[in-house]
Amino acid sequence: MPPETHPFIRRALELARKSIGLSEPNPRVGCVIARSDGTVLGEGHTQQAGGPHAEIVALRAAKAAGHDVAGATAYVTLEPCSHHGRTGPCCDALVAAGIARVVASCQDPNPLVAGQGFERLRAAGVQVDVGGGAAETRELNLGFFSRMVRGTPWVRLKVAASLDGRTALPDGTSQWITQEPARADGHAWRARAGAVLTGIGTVLEDDPRLDVRMAPAPRQPDVVLVDSRLELPASARLFQPGRRLWIYTAQADAARADKVRALGAEVIALPGPNGKVDLAALLRDLGKRGVNELHVEAGHKLNGSLVREGLVDEFLVYLAPRLLGAGREMAAFGPLAKLDDATMLDFTSVEPIGPDLRILARVRGRDAF
Amino acid sequence: MPPETHPFIRRALELARKSIGLSEPNPRVGCVIARSDGTVLGEGHTQQAGGPHAEIVALRAAKAAGHDVAGATAYVTLEPCSHHGRTGPCCDALVAAGIARVVASCQDPNPLVAGQGFERLRAAGVQVDVGGGAAETRELNLGFFSRMVRGTPWVRLKVAASLDGRTALPDGTSQWITQEPARADGHAWRARAGAVLTGIGTVLEDDPRLDVRMAPAPRQPDVVLVDSRLELPASARLFQPGRRLWIYTAQADAARADKVRALGAEVIALPGPNGKVDLAALLRDLGKRGVNELHVEAGHKLNGSLVREGLVDEFLVYLAPRLLGAGREMAAFGPLAKLDDATMLDFTSVEPIGPDLRILARVRGRDAF
Repeated sequence: MPPETHPFIRRALELARKSIGLSEPNPRVGCVIARSDGTVLGEGHTQQAGGPHAEIVALRAAKAAGHDVAGATAYVTLEPCSHHGRTGPCCDALVAAGIARVVASCQDPNPLVAGQGFERLRAAGVQVDVGGGAAETRELNLGFFSRMVRGTPWVRLKVAASLDGRTALPDGTSQWITQEPARADGHAWRARAGAVLTGIGTVLEDDPRLDVRMAPAPRQPDVVLVDSRLELPASARLFQPGRRLWIYTAQADAARADKVRALGAEVIALPGPNGKVDLAALLRDLGKRGVNELHVEAGHKLNGSLVREGLVDEFLVYLAPRLLGAGREMAAFGPLAKLDDATMLDFTSVEPIGPDLRILARVRGRDAF
Repeated sequence: MPPETHPFIRRALELARKSIGLSEPNPRVGCVIARSDGTVLGEGHTQQAGGPHAEIVALRAAKAAGHDVAGATAYVTLEPCSHHGRTGPCCDALVAAGIARVVASCQDPNPLVAGQGFERLRAAGVQVDVGGGAAETRELNLGFFSRMVRGTPWVRLKVAASLDGRTALPDGTSQWITQEPARADGHAWRARAGAVLTGIGTVLEDDPRLDVRMAPAPRQPDVVLVDSRLELPASARLFQPGRRLWIYTAQADAARADKVRALGAEVIALPGPNGKVDLAALLRDLGKRGVNELHVEAGHKLNGSLVREGLVDEFLVYLAPRLLGAGREMAAFGPLAKLDDATMLDFTSVEPIGPDLRILARVRGRDAF
């Protein structure tokens, strides 16, 4: 049994959830500053990149309310940072404000922090207690933990399919298999991701925008395109002002790359076998670029490659209450030699979304990092 | 808002559920006999075919307990029968016992009853009140109502599939996609059906018994085989002592039919187009034979024919938490010309069964008879 989680840590976890879709690539963190008599002096959650972290927001809130935080306790869902990133170290700010005690859910997996924040606080005479809400923090920050520990994003593959697993008719028609509530829910999942990945097949067929329109979004996710032969047309709706578009290719044609670059995209050549993009290398590159959660919305072929290579961590499946019969599959791979060769998943969540069903299925044990 | 259901009707509905898997082809009915002061004198539910109906069981229970039911009220979930079937009319037994009032959930859709039971009771001076629990009775007896109103069974098609809708690897390997709890649950659904239907393809490939082994079963469902060319081998495990096996064929070869008959099966020729069995006619024939709920466990081809012809009322889908990629589909039909050509279903129930997921999806509006 884990120790009972302090009510202020619970509150800090609530706050941390408000950083979803906002704080990328930083972790989703909440902070409550309170006196030992239970008076809350300030609270906050991590803002957009470059903006203040949870601790700073809470300290500022306390100050704005005219509270002196000297001798108070900071309840925070992740170890306060000890390094200079785009902002100064939170540890120093807490110490400077006279915080006497820090209760943190767990250690920051960021190798630049990884216990050094706690050490720095203790060295300054701050009491540090670790525990309570660690599992929730890790779950909320699965992408951040994945990137820090594995060096790659948490890969969530989204498909909308009929009950019999068809994502499109044989001719590619797929708009719409699910209803509006499920599509809006899908946008909310896009919004929380650092980047949305798709393949050139989907772009040539559907010309999607892959932005967040049907859900609130303080920031639009970056877009990652797998385009082995660099076929993206200049007219593609993926090009959107102010949004980052990363095109991964196996193509070495500099002129063609320059043409796409001129339109505002970044082109990264990562050739793998068979003239295809090296997808594992792509994920490592996205890790370096700060993508915590990668939201995949691609066609059956790219999905199949990702599944075959074991690169998907979680499936986000919307099932519509109908059968389509002949059509495209969720992921084109196989055949497997035997049933037990299939990767085992766990259904972690099943919810009705309008008339459709949303199923989250996670590769068994994949979240144990 | 329907009138509030009387607590004794609620109890009678509970009793009626005990007739599931027992009373075929009779409806699942419960009965409570009580005095106006609330004393329960006797209760019961319909027994196996040829055995007593709910009302008779309740009357006997009262008698066995030494109670006089004269002046009492019988709460019953379906109109008491007025005709001589394998048992005498329940109406007469209630009148003879001196029952003063009958509260019934709804009218019996059986054309041999259909209000005549109520009429007969009223004519004998019994007060009759109808209402409360009608929806539950209809739902519990969907198969019986289907057979009485449409002349055909309620057709429930069961499949076990991977999350991506595969029911087998391309070579037919399907044992096992789901785990034991889901398979046991599947047996419980077999047990409640009047008959289990399969196709010759499944028999030649898997040689299934299609009996109920992993769930309690007071009776084994009959077996219906679609075998257009009469290819059933004499060694098939479908042949089981004491169990009825109906083989529907498009084959007119009398010698071959005689051979199968000698093994204890009944052979019914119902040729349709293309040398196949006429499946709609098959359902009408099963209706005549008293099958209320038909449980389909067949392969992708027969499933596809049933779906294509609009003969499936409900899908019972077990989804396993894995992806199989290439493999057999749930139902081989299509391609549809457009997405909206797909029959719309409603997800009526979604439950985890062990690590798997059980989804019930019903053809929209199909239960409105």
